[in-house]
Amino acid sequence: MKLWEKGYSVNQKIEKFTIGKDRILDMYLAKHDVLGNMAQTKMLAKVGIISKEEETDLLKGLEELLEQIKAGTFEIEDHFEDVHSKIEVYLTQKYGEAGKKIHTARSRNDQVLTAIQLFFKEYIVELAAQTKALMDVLMQKADQHKAVLLPGYTHFQAAMPSSFGLWFSAYAEHLLLDLQFLQGAFHIADQNPLGSAAGFGSSFPIDREFTTKEMGFSNVLVSSVSAQMLRGKTEKSLAFAMAQIAGTISKMASDLVMYNSQEMGFVKLPKELTTGSSIMPHKKNPDVFELTRAHCNLIQGVPSTLVIATNNLPSGYHRDFQVLKEILFEPMTSLLDILSINVFAIENMQINSGYMDNPKYDAIFTVENINELIKSGVPFRDAYKKVGESWENGTYKPQKDFRTTHLGSIHNPGIETLTKKIEDFVGSSVLFAG
Amino acid sequence: MKLWEKGYSVNQKIEKFTIGKDRILDMYLAKHDVLGNMAQTKMLAKVGIISKEEETDLLKGLEELLEQIKAGTFEIEDHFEDVHSKIEVYLTQKYGEAGKKIHTARSRNDQVLTAIQLFFKEYIVELAAQTKALMDVLMQKADQHKAVLLPGYTHFQAAMPSSFGLWFSAYAEHLLLDLQFLQGAFHIADQNPLGSAAGFGSSFPIDREFTTKEMGFSNVLVSSVSAQMLRGKTEKSLAFAMAQIAGTISKMASDLVMYNSQEMGFVKLPKELTTGSSIMPHKKNPDVFELTRAHCNLIQGVPSTLVIATNNLPSGYHRDFQVLKEILFEPMTSLLDILSINVFAIENMQINSGYMDNPKYDAIFTVENINELIKSGVPFRDAYKKVGESWENGTYKPQKDFRTTHLGSIHNPGIETLTKKIEDFVGSSVLFAG
Amino acid sequence: MKLWEKGYSVNQKIEKFTIGKDRILDMYLAKHDVLGNMAQTKMLAKVGIISKEEETDLLKGLEELLEQIKAGTFEIEDHFEDVHSKIEVYLTQKYGEAGKKIHTARSRNDQVLTAIQLFFKEYIVELAAQTKALMDVLMQKADQHKAVLLPGYTHFQAAMPSSFGLWFSAYAEHLLLDLQFLQGAFHIADQNPLGSAAGFGSSFPIDREFTTKEMGFSNVLVSSVSAQMLRGKTEKSLAFAMAQIAGTISKMASDLVMYNSQEMGFVKLPKELTTGSSIMPHKKNPDVFELTRAHCNLIQGVPSTLVIATNNLPSGYHRDFQVLKEILFEPMTSLLDILSINVFAIENMQINSGYMDNPKYDAIFTVENINELIKSGVPFRDAYKKVGESWENGTYKPQKDFRTTHLGSIHNPGIETLTKKIEDFVGSSVLFAG
Amino acid sequence: MKLWEKGYSVNQKIEKFTIGKDRILDMYLAKHDVLGNMAQTKMLAKVGIISKEEETDLLKGLEELLEQIKAGTFEIEDHFEDVHSKIEVYLTQKYGEAGKKIHTARSRNDQVLTAIQLFFKEYIVELAAQTKALMDVLMQKADQHKAVLLPGYTHFQAAMPSSFGLWFSAYAEHLLLDLQFLQGAFHIADQNPLGSAAGFGSSFPIDREFTTKEMGFSNVLVSSVSAQMLRGKTEKSLAFAMAQIAGTISKMASDLVMYNSQEMGFVKLPKELTTGSSIMPHKKNPDVFELTRAHCNLIQGVPSTLVIATNNLPSGYHRDFQVLKEILFEPMTSLLDILSINVFAIENMQINSGYMDNPKYDAIFTVENINELIKSGVPFRDAYKKVGESWENGTYKPQKDFRTTHLGSIHNPGIETLTKKIEDFVGSSVLFAG
Repeated sequence: MKLWEKGYSVNQKIEKFTIGKDRILDMYLAKHDVLGNMAQTKMLAKVGIISKEEETDLLKGLEELLEQIKAGTFEIEDHFEDVHSKIEVYLTQKYGEAGKKIHTARSRNDQVLTAIQLFFKEYIVELAAQTKALMDVLMQKADQHKAVLLPGYTHFQAAMPSSFGLWFSAYAEHLLLDLQFLQGAFHIADQNPLGSAAGFGSSFPIDREFTTKEMGFSNVLVSSVSAQMLRGKTEKSLAFAMAQIAGTISKMASDLVMYNSQEMGFVKLPKELTTGSSIMPHKKNPDVFELTRAHCNLIQGVPSTLVIATNNLPSGYHRDFQVLKEILFEPMTSLLDILSINVFAIENMQINSGYMDNPKYDAIFTVENINELIKSGVPFRDAYKKVGESWENGTYKPQKDFRTTHLGSIHNPGIETLTKKIEDFVGSSVLFAG
Repeated sequence: MKLWEKGYSVNQKIEKFTIGKDRILDMYLAKHDVLGNMAQTKMLAKVGIISKEEETDLLKGLEELLEQIKAGTFEIEDHFEDVHSKIEVYLTQKYGEAGKKIHTARSRNDQVLTAIQLFFKEYIVELAAQTKALMDVLMQKADQHKAVLLPGYTHFQAAMPSSFGLWFSAYAEHLLLDLQFLQGAFHIADQNPLGSAAGFGSSFPIDREFTTKEMGFSNVLVSSVSAQMLRGKTEKSLAFAMAQIAGTISKMASDLVMYNSQEMGFVKLPKELTTGSSIMPHKKNPDVFELTRAHCNLIQGVPSTLVIATNNLPSGYHRDFQVLKEILFEPMTSLLDILSINVFAIENMQINSGYMDNPKYDAIFTVENINELIKSGVPFRDAYKKVGESWENGTYKPQKDFRTTHLGSIHNPGIETLTKKIEDFVGSSVLFAG
Repeated sequence: MKLWEKGYSVNQKIEKFTIGKDRILDMYLAKHDVLGNMAQTKMLAKVGIISKEEETDLLKGLEELLEQIKAGTFEIEDHFEDVHSKIEVYLTQKYGEAGKKIHTARSRNDQVLTAIQLFFKEYIVELAAQTKALMDVLMQKADQHKAVLLPGYTHFQAAMPSSFGLWFSAYAEHLLLDLQFLQGAFHIADQNPLGSAAGFGSSFPIDREFTTKEMGFSNVLVSSVSAQMLRGKTEKSLAFAMAQIAGTISKMASDLVMYNSQEMGFVKLPKELTTGSSIMPHKKNPDVFELTRAHCNLIQGVPSTLVIATNNLPSGYHRDFQVLKEILFEPMTSLLDILSINVFAIENMQINSGYMDNPKYDAIFTVENINELIKSGVPFRDAYKKVGESWENGTYKPQKDFRTTHLGSIHNPGIETLTKKIEDFVGSSVLFAG
Repeated sequence: MKLWEKGYSVNQKIEKFTIGKDRILDMYLAKHDVLGNMAQTKMLAKVGIISKEEETDLLKGLEELLEQIKAGTFEIEDHFEDVHSKIEVYLTQKYGEAGKKIHTARSRNDQVLTAIQLFFKEYIVELAAQTKALMDVLMQKADQHKAVLLPGYTHFQAAMPSSFGLWFSAYAEHLLLDLQFLQGAFHIADQNPLGSAAGFGSSFPIDREFTTKEMGFSNVLVSSVSAQMLRGKTEKSLAFAMAQIAGTISKMASDLVMYNSQEMGFVKLPKELTTGSSIMPHKKNPDVFELTRAHCNLIQGVPSTLVIATNNLPSGYHRDFQVLKEILFEPMTSLLDILSINVFAIENMQINSGYMDNPKYDAIFTVENINELIKSGVPFRDAYKKVGESWENGTYKPQKDFRTTHLGSIHNPGIETLTKKIEDFVGSSVLFAG
């Protein structure tokens, strides 16, 4: 039997096809759907659609579910199609009519979207925190190795002296830019869609500002049509911001894969992060960084798939949106894994020494030789020619004794300046404040 | 002769290939490169690398170039490979040695990047202003037509009553979200890379904080390695933010293409925006909205092409970056065109009437019929069944006399609330302050 | 505890990260890895690297594994990192030294690639067969409903009369084009990489032509470097071909979502393929076609993610390639599901009647009115004007009594011609012959 | 004045927007539109819609246009919106009524598509020929340098000995695979859409088989709906096939960028293909290969943009399709440029010597040391351990004197076998026969 023939009947196939991965992916949303239900319950009581007693019952049931989720015992059994029906049935079975009323003035459309927004907010705060953790390690390393020289490459060629101070801090600074971008995604996730129902509101006298405050959203999406249209956009926003972080880490991994090669040998990776070869005893393969890069690449592919899945569709709900969870949720977890593994990697990575003595790197000091001649009064063109000739005829002696002064240069990498820049942003954002 | 055989020699082909579209695309950067050169000149004088006289000469030459650019007489002639060499040669021919010194402590790498950052800042401010202009028109229309009903669609099916008030304001509200995202791209464009030279700084005693203030950047990219790494990232940031705006407008265009169909007929597009058919006298094709959608789709394809062009490359300059201009600059202009055409389109679009009387839309009021029964005490399940039956057996009468109250619903679309939300953001951002 | 904090130690995290989804995804490759091992075994015996006895033992063990796989009892337990180590350990534990020798002159690199090629060949044959099955149903329907008219749309507007004969057969004809494209992917999958070892061959006297014949490959990838480079390319080839099929079906689903709307109502979808609404009794949502479209879109996103994951990497193996399985294998299964569900859907779909009598479709006959006038001697411009005027002033009477004759037109849809075109291709390809 | 403010009125803006780049891009199609018009003319005469005299006149006019195109004097003046209206007006002005009749039973939709198909066929034949030219040079180089060793890399690390024979021939073999894929795109371009009119045929008694033969198409797209649906698909097919070729060349360029680095120095690139640095006299930057890679990456981004522009649209013509020309036509030319530049580059590239004596490459022979011990009777594990220890304690002596025998290995690279494989394919395809 072939792997893809599982002996299902057509109806089973169709059921499987329409449910898709909802039971698995909805586990990401369970907590947030409960929180959304709590706000909905309180609001319905406030405006008089349910009684005080019904409110108490429903909140009790929802607390129970929250406990199960925290304890890891919450399940979406096979006969439920998603987390929302599971929760509703639980409430109805325990508290009768009240359970049936919780869905008043609401539709699956705004309910799912509310859970997604709450989930994204929590996720973005976590992502920001873990990104900050990696920045911290990078800045420590930058400070610790600020004096260690490194060849700087352009066009894949050793070009000029650089330093580990500049290299480590560069990635911290780029992650800071990525955080500023991520903040844009947070603003979009921080909008309450609840109450828009199927995307056009309802004639029930609900209070959308109340649920906004209750769930801790900064804003309500005013137009119900606008609220519904958020589906697709909030996912793309997060995906774009994740792609930026992933792009930064992917580049860092590319550098480290090369720096770890026998030909460069600038770093010594912790043994947990390399593998040997079963047939080549000399190999120390940087598998973890290759996989970091590859998984970052999957994440960078997400925005384009989200665009393909949603564009050219008019406004309003389409069942197509179900697959957005499938496209995005796993990569979200993957990015957190990447961050925590790279915190460990950077912390435990050692900087080698001696490689700068290799004559193959002498050439990267030609610029310093030229600058020295210029400072002694030789015009640039003549200096360039002279150094070029000495390089060609083998008499060249690298000028390794140079001193840089400007901000962001080898001998003034600006660690404190950058630390302040980072802390200013953190202070003003409190990393999106949870 | 085939189109692609132009009779070039190999060397000409190679020259053409390496220069690419630089001469054309660099016209976008001319003004900004002059501004960067002015800051560089003043800084070099300040730190004593050039004399006061040389400064005066250079600034004079740069002013002349700025005048040419404003007057539209500036050209990059065929014997220059890019805008930077054109400007340098101009200065050198007019002011001799001073012209040669302007490139001290600088490389093409940070020079191009500086011009790009200044260009992006100006562009983003313009993009924000034009986006705001479209939002303004949408809000006016929302207010003007707030009482006009419209079928609301889910799953491509007429589902429930909606309104033009909700529809117009929804797109304004989404553009507001897009502006918040665009602000993230602005922060990234608002970082000064100048002084990082080839990506590793230099041993000249330059003052990077001075040029930062001089050019109006909010921040300096501290690490020179970080400054160089901005190439690719600043383009991706802008492209992501443009893709969000394009995604919103593309969806609006999709709606309007459908709303303009004979089958729906909700809107009457201004004749400038439709075309007839040479063989079908009844057709009014919404070409401009189809092209709006198509060009928005090109823009949405840009991020993925930028990622493909840059990922898996280690840090440091690569000549590959040249094509980033080719990928991004034309779509930037295209998005501004789209915005201004859609301002005109929305302003001049008329709302039809009468379509809601078509019996095919009766069904969208079933929810209101059910709600009415509920309010009169009938339990939901019974009400749903009853209305369903009347629909099936042809006795159904739509409940068109209903009233909604909650924020963002048909009879309370929240135009003032949303106007305030928009103005609050504009006020706090002053649309990135130019 | 948050969902993404699972309490793993760093080492566990790294192990999990490097193994990834290999244990799950390698189940797709189990059968093919056994087949590759069998060919390897026979070849090693033929060239004298293992003895006849060892060959017998290994083939026995491999047959046992094949039985387990067929019976569904084969497992990759947690202490194995992939299917290859599982199989090798199984052989070694049962047959000692012989098991250790099977990997002679081979590396994981060519072993995995061989299994992937065999898997892809089997998959492509299955995909071609299921695509052909859908084409058959489409052609039956085209024949059955060839006389049923349908409005033909351009610019989303009802434009001219079309027919279900043309519509159904069009999708069959496009799937035929897709099969021709798929054949290109088959040629690439039909190349044997075994024996290239880590990508540079080995000094063992192996016989690569023997394994090529033994495994039923049409060709050997001659250069070992070329064989290794196939990783990434064979995946992209298949993904491109899948994207074409998915693009065709996605478009068909888009049509059906619209044709099923209350506004059009051209088709009646089988109830298994639609869902009702919990609050709107009049809705019949075409969820299965929306999900068909959405999953086809995921599949259309795969090529770009594969490109992002592999481009800018030099030749030679990179651990990055591990994620290619993650990107491609699930969508492969998904496409087969889509095909079988759509075979059912098309078979059971009913064509409605009466909709063409709706006056809103009168206008699509204007071209026929004009042609009639032309045939009676009126010049085109005058005919166009006259019909246009009658349309404007309400006196228009649609010319529904027209007759087309050319191949591919309403009254001569060319069902037999197309059937022959399809059978000619099938005959010449025997659908890639398995 | 800002670059993007050109002082156009709204109507000018809209006209510019709707015409887009048609006047420029349609130059690619001029010849093919004339050829399509010729076939249309002959067919109209054959079925009696135009007279023999009118046929003679029209063919004369079309020949004149063809001459202009060949001579490079053909122009699409500003008052024409595209090539089709230019040609029609030319014919009408010269031959009166006959010119007006040429569009009978045709629409812009099938006319453009026919020109595109003819253009793609010619292009694909040219692309195949130029790809074959690059393969020929690669095979010559492979043969010439078959004995020259090269370090083979895995995980970016020097791993095992490889050779330029294997390396050069690998890229030739991959281009062969790409040609097989390209043949799939040719089959799709080789289908005649003419006569499908607006996508639903017409009631004129045209002869579509006649035009098929007349224009040299192998097949007619039978269903008119199918013919119209080709728009988008034929572009995607070609783009997928181009992406494969671009992917291969991009990888080759990545290798050469590295091989040209000071750290490796395996090749000496012709000076026309490298640039120096204005400040670093030791640099030889491989700009042409970086730009080759970058432009190949643009080409690899095309399929995803085409998918974004077309997916989720129902069948039938949409004005959106206009932008497909903008997405695809320039990259088509770009790929031919890349091929011809790389033919020159590979022809003129020199192979360095001496680099294999560098002790840093000693380690790549460890596998040979181990194999030698195995052949002398030492079990693998012991041999691996022994060689590993010698490597660690500095006593290791590389076994450079080894001999490989199997097909595709260093000493048997299989140049003749591969040459025959290539010639067999060329012979059976005659490279798509023009």
